[in-house]
Formats: sequence, structure tokens, C-alpha cells
Amino acid sequence: MSHHDTSRTAGLIGLDWGTTSLRAYRMDAAGRVLETRQRPWGIMRLPQVSEGLASPGAGFELAFTETCGDWLDAAPNLPVIACGMVGSAQGWKEAAYLDVPLPLTQIGTRLTVIERQGPTWRTPVHVVPGLIQRQGLPNVMRGEETQVLGAVAGLGETWTEGELLVGLPGTHSKWVSVNLGSAPGHAGQGGLEDPAAQGNEGNQGGNGASVSRFETFMTGEVYAALREHTILGRTMSAAPTPPDWAAFERGLHVADEPEGAAGPLSTMFSTRTLGLTGALPPTAQGDYLSGLLIGHEVAALAGLLRARAARSPQSARPRILLCGEPDLCHRYTLALQRHGLPEPARAEHATERGLWRLALAAGLVQAAPAHTTP
Amino acid sequence: MSHHDTSRTAGLIGLDWGTTSLRAYRMDAAGRVLETRQRPWGIMRLPQVSEGLASPGAGFELAFTETCGDWLDAAPNLPVIACGMVGSAQGWKEAAYLDVPLPLTQIGTRLTVIERQGPTWRTPVHVVPGLIQRQGLPNVMRGEETQVLGAVAGLGETWTEGELLVGLPGTHSKWVSVNLGSAPGHAGQGGLEDPAAQGNEGNQGGNGASVSRFETFMTGEVYAALREHTILGRTMSAAPTPPDWAAFERGLHVADEPEGAAGPLSTMFSTRTLGLTGALPPTAQGDYLSGLLIGHEVAALAGLLRARAARSPQSARPRILLCGEPDLCHRYTLALQRHGLPEPARAEHATERGLWRLALAAGLVQAAPAHTTP
Repeated sequence: MSHHDTSRTAGLIGLDWGTTSLRAYRMDAAGRVLETRQRPWGIMRLPQVSEGLASPGAGFELAFTETCGDWLDAAPNLPVIACGMVGSAQGWKEAAYLDVPLPLTQIGTRLTVIERQGPTWRTPVHVVPGLIQRQGLPNVMRGEETQVLGAVAGLGETWTEGELLVGLPGTHSKWVSVNLGSAPGHAGQGGLEDPAAQGNEGNQGGNGASVSRFETFMTGEVYAALREHTILGRTMSAAPTPPDWAAFERGLHVADEPEGAAGPLSTMFSTRTLGLTGALPPTAQGDYLSGLLIGHEVAALAGLLRARAARSPQSARPRILLCGEPDLCHRYTLALQRHGLPEPARAEHATERGLWRLALAAGLVQAAPAHTTP
Repeated sequence: MSHHDTSRTAGLIGLDWGTTSLRAYRMDAAGRVLETRQRPWGIMRLPQVSEGLASPGAGFELAFTETCGDWLDAAPNLPVIACGMVGSAQGWKEAAYLDVPLPLTQIGTRLTVIERQGPTWRTPVHVVPGLIQRQGLPNVMRGEETQVLGAVAGLGETWTEGELLVGLPGTHSKWVSVNLGSAPGHAGQGGLEDPAAQGNEGNQGGNGASVSRFETFMTGEVYAALREHTILGRTMSAAPTPPDWAAFERGLHVADEPEGAAGPLSTMFSTRTLGLTGALPPTAQGDYLSGLLIGHEVAALAGLLRARAARSPQSARPRILLCGEPDLCHRYTLALQRHGLPEPARAEHATERGLWRLALAAGLVQAAPAHTTP
């Protein structure tokens, strides 16, 4: 594989700033990640600021400079882009919600700028807008739009048209329907090569893609709340490593018909009763409950897909791309399999690729010149 | 209406001892409730015992004597019967689970005795067994069996045969299918009169009834966990009094088709998004979420009933009896209505009536002689 040798100087700081954690990427001028840092300073867990300094944004400023200060020391004019709940009403500064359907690259033209009052660097932070779907029950995302863009860009030329369903499991899992539209790449960019290894500079994938709609399931947060704050947690021991996959699959099985017909509000109680009858040891109960909830989520998703296919019979079964923690993606892969849905592909490095793409679209960084094939 | 004038001397102490509270009834020799006390000492919230006295049952003993000590001072040989989680593995002493299907009165023949070490009274406490259903996913109850017995006994001669569905909304709501079997009363007992006013002495209802199966939904506990421990609670203000019924009905509506098809793990997120879009004020969000969850529960119940009717077409649509807090019963009545289920009747005083019935079946108290009609 060949690409021009972009110098390893930094080109962008990308922040993935959610509710419970902050992840920072330092990238070079071609979008390659040079360094990644993770801090526990999600927007609900900011570091404590001494009282005299407690201006509205002080906690955010402190978290940001503690995480990225030395990067800015080395390159004070480095542009900064951030996605996630940092742009919510409870965040550093509220960024817009853009309405779907929406072409993905349009997101990068609507960044919200935070002018910073830092003592040494005044680099502004550019916050990525979220997406909102107003048709039917309203639905929102913040952060996932960036992952979707990165996941689609990472496809290269493997999938170039038709419908794609991007699954983003997590605290709130999202299932995002993407219309790939026109071909995402052109000859010579090596779309099938490992996109992480080649950097982001050449791959123009995703430029024609648009988000058509999305669903949210609060599965991850419900799992945690059930585990920590209901009777189900009382008989459960800590989740084993590696996970108890047999217990997980048993949960998937129960969430399916016929037992699953009573729905998650009912089947979840079996986590306790199977324990009481000696049929499910405490170490297995967490993964069983995980299987139950993920099983109900994917059963509902499969039902929605069937209903849509019935409404528009010409629509093809969408291909599926999963984007998230490997353990969680494996859980969802098993659930998709049980419901006869297509084997999902796995998106890697979607967030950092998405941040780079949005910085490109916003003009914060420049696309490297197209490289030549040997 | 006529009945013999049973003297108002106490005949039984009945305890309804659950996870979060203890309710005690002092009854006369005919089963009429003379006094009711409620204490916050559920089995997970027992009063603190000073360290030297911390024997395994000390917290239970303290809660019991603090609540009922003066009743026992006045009548040291008063029999005591208790139902609920006090008989669980985390309770005062573990009582059996009896397998369903089961004739209701059989429950009273299987009480577990707690021999007490009290300094002045040594009256034992008789603990009611729970029920277990082992077919399919296991299911258990503790306390509701007593309410079901009391609710059925309270029917008098209004309903004497066929199938009855007893709904017990609460932290964990139960839906109990009861086969009424033979006629519950006989001439002269005034089954249509107010059973609470007439006492329990004459009404023999429920003797032929048996529990055939039951379902559990963790709706109440899930509601509390979502409200207190997830992002949904962040935008929600305290539940208004009276409830916001319009918001509740809106939740019921959403839990129905077509939006409800994504299931509760998905629709619950709309509590937040409708708030974000200004379509649901903070004061309305709690009742909206309540409507969503109860709506999903009753939708699932309706589905189970349809599936059973399809399997055995000769079975009649069951009549429904609700037993619980008036506000909660009203919520479930609205949900049943929306799903085209029969208008439920309301059971009153079911717990105390059930405790008395079980004490009778156990021989702890004596049935008063049948009274004569004028």
C-alpha cells in the first residue's frame, strides 16, 4: 500500500466528550491518531474547581486543559473539535440539533464555537451539533452522528450504495439508518485497506451518505439501574471476566418467543426467580439479564425492520455495521444472529475518523493532496 | 342486614410485612378489623437494634413488639399471622413456596411457626407460605396469595364460578388467574352486602377457588429506578397531586401501536425527548412515564390473554378484579380500558380478609357460628 508521507506533526485535537468520560485524540496533519487519552471527566463528573474560579465553564476548561494542555503547549494553534454531550444544555455550550433526514457532511458546517479564556492558549473549541428526528416520537443523539460519519467513511469502497443500519450499542444504544447514496470513494484510494493504517486523508467515503432515521434504546442505562438499584441486584454477584456467554445466550433465548412475549418488564423478574430456584447462580445473573435486555431490544428492532419492509417491499434488507466496545458488539452480534438479521460488520476508529471528517468539512484542517498510486 | 353480635374482643393479629413497610391489623373474634397500624419497618428497613442484642431475628422482634406490644399486653395469647416478604430468605424465617396450581385454602395449612423469645409474651408468629410457578420461567409471590384469597372471599356470591384474573399492581405487579370452581357461599350469608361491614365470619367465599397461574411485571420498581437513577429523572419534577392524568393517558397512548412497537426500552426515552422539544413539561414527565410503563405492561398482558384464548377457544374472557392503592388501580383501569379488556371490579380489604381466612384454615381462630337471617 502506498500513500504520501505526511509529516507526523499534529493537525487536530479531537474530543469525544460524553456524560461519563472524556476521550482526547491528537491527530497529525493527515488525520492519523498520534496519541489517545481517556479521562473520567464526563460532563456530569467534571473535576472540582476551587470556589473562586467557579465560572459556568470553569469545570470544562479545567478538564480540557488538564487533558490537552501539553499538546497545546507544543502547538498552540492546533484546532480543537468536540462531539457528544459537551454540546448539550448541561454541557460547556449548547450546540444545535440538526433535523434528519440530513446529508452527513452537512454536520461539519454547523459547528458551535466556544471562545476560551485560557491564560496561555486561546484556541477555541468547536462543538459538533447533535441530530434530532421530529417525526413520530422525537429522538435525539449527540456524539453518535460523529461515529456514524466515521463508520461510513471507514467503509471505503466495500459498500457504496443502498441502505446501511449502523448500530451503536452503549448506555443508550442507537440504530441509525443511513442511505449511502453515491459511491463513497474513487480509484486509487485503497478503500479495502485498513483505513486506520492509511489515515483519513484520502478516503472521501460518506460524502454522499445521509441519515434517514434512527431509534434509541436505553438498554445499557436500564441494565445498570436494574443491577444497582432494584431487587435484581441483590442476588447478583460481580460480572465475571470473561463474561458468562452461556448465561447471556440463555437470556437471549428467553427474550425470544414464547417466554419473551410478556416483554422485558416481566421477563427481567426471571433473573431473580431462576436464582431462587437454583437454576442460575449469582455469577450468571448479570450476563443473563444482559442477554434478556439486549434480546428484547434486538427483537423490537427486528420487528420494526419487518414492519418497514412490509410497508415498502422494494426496500432491501439493510446491511448492518456495529460500532462500539468489542464485548458489547459481540453481545449484539449474537442477538442479531438469533433474530436472523445479517451478520454485522464492525466499524473501528469511527469517532476519531468522524471528528477528522467534520474538521475537514468545517475547514479547520486541510485535506492532504491526493496521493498517487505507484 | 343481620348478624350475631360478636363481642369486640380481639381475636387475631394480622401482619402484612413487606420489603418497605409493615402493616398490622388487630381483629376481633369475628375477623372485623378493630385497629390498623402502619410502620416503615419493611424487612429491608428494620429498626436499629443496639449491638449487644443483634441476634439474627432481633430487628424483626423489635419491629414487631414496637408495633403490636400493647395489643399483646392486653391479650397475651392473641394468635399472630404474617404474610409477605417476612417469610423470604431475607425475612424473619423462611417459609415454604407452595406449587401452583393450588386450592387457595390449602395455603393456610402450611404456615411456618416462629417461636419467639420475647421477655413477656411468647406468642409465636405464623408465617404464610408464598406461591411458586415452575412451569416455563419460574415465578414467585409472597403476600399476594393472601390478598388473592381475601379478594376472592370478598366476592361473596357476585361471581361464583369461571375464571377470574386478579390484578395486584404495586412494586411488582402480579396478575393471578383464579379458577373459582364451586359456588363460594350459601344462602343466608348476604354475599352481596359490603363484606367489610359484615366482618368475615360468615362469608365462606374462596373455599373452592384455586390459583392456576400468574405473571409478574416489575413495573413499579422499574419506574422508581428510572426516575431516581437514570437520565429520565434529571428533567422530571416531583409528581403532581392530583396526578397529571392527561400526561398519563398520553403515555398509555404511546405504549400502544404504532409507536409502542419498539417496546419500553425504546419508548421510555421519549420522556426525555418530549421534554427537550418543549412538548412535555417537567411536571408531566413522571405521569407520562407511568402511563408508558403501565401501558406496555397491560399491552403485554392483553397479548398473553389473546394467545391463551387462541390456544383454548372455549375459555371465556376472564373477569378482572383489581386489588391495590386506589390511585394505582385507577391507572390500571384506564390501561385495561384502552386495550379493550373488561372493566375491572375493585377488591377492598383483601389483605386483612385473607389473613383472617388463613388463620381460620390453620385453626388459629374459630369460625363464629353461622348467624340466622331474620
